Amino acid sequence: MTRRRGPLFLALALAALARAEEPKGQGVEYPAGYRQWPHVKSMVIYSEKHPLYAKFGGFHDIYANADAMRAYTKGGTFPDGSTIVFDLLQAKDENGAWVSGERKFIGVMRRDRARFKATGGWGFEGFSGDSRSERMVTDPAAECFSCHQQQKDNDFVFSGYRP
Amino acid sequence: MTRRRGPLFLALALAALARAEEPKGQGVEYPAGYRQWPHVKSMVIYSEKHPLYAKFGGFHDIYANADAMRAYTKGGTFPDGSTIVFDLLQAKDENGAWVSGERKFIGVMRRDRARFKATGGWGFEGFSGDSRSERMVTDPAAECFSCHQQQKDNDFVFSGYRP
Repeated sequence: MTRRRGPLFLALALAALARAEEPKGQGVEYPAGYRQWPHVKSMVIYSEKHPLYAKFGGFHDIYANADAMRAYTKGGTFPDGSTIVFDLLQAKDENGAWVSGERKFIGVMRRDRARFKATGGWGFEGFSGDSRSERMVTDPAAECFSCHQQQKDNDFVFSGYRP
Repeated sequence: MTRRRGPLFLALALAALARAEEPKGQGVEYPAGYRQWPHVKSMVIYSEKHPLYAKFGGFHDIYANADAMRAYTKGGTFPDGSTIVFDLLQAKDENGAWVSGERKFIGVMRRDRARFKATGGWGFEGFSGDSRSERMVTDPAAECFSCHQQQKDNDFVFSGYRP
């Protein structure tokens, strides 16, 4: 019996594994190499007084690929292919200075109007810590776009480039 | 008489102008395009408790050119041509978050072992606000290297790259 169940068990196990690795959200790719992309700006959300502290408390740096940089610096809408990374790190208060620590997660916005029609032409994803595969977003409309849609007049983007 | 004094006056005026534009420090060039260079890390020095508050209080971002990035990421000493920019902005506390404001100045370190022998092979300069010509450093040994020489074991550089 054991020998006959073997292949079925293996098939079920592989199916379960495939399901576990299937993105639950929109399948936005990990932005390989983003730490070498241009830096848009940084910010430290350090206190519970700030409305975004619970979700985004810490030190964040924003990076943009070349497609997104064209829109940031020359204006106009973000073309397909634009990718923006929100890199959130722990913020540590060291003797009167805020310094960055371990990575909490990265948030990624990827423009593809055909693929992400329901969320302003942007796909949203989060990758936990330093992982390139541990995805965080299961419902991008509720978890990401519900807030980004306030920024419709700015093509759904919050940050502005600091020259 | 006026006509005969003309050329002398002109020559003196030009000489004065040349002297005014002559760098008082080491002649380190303005790092054109540095805002597109890779971002090393950021920090906010926000309180007088911090020993560097008087000189460097504010929000700073550090950028490195390709030569400097090789040393930051692969180790080893910084090759000639390495340039590191310390971009200091005003830090504003907005409702529990530190955000960056106007530029106070940029500090520049440029590696050229032959040219800057007396200061660890690094040239130092500051450019005030958004100016590309208003230089701030008159005595790099006293104003910059006196502190950087503590970091001799790290090739005189304070920052480390945050991956």
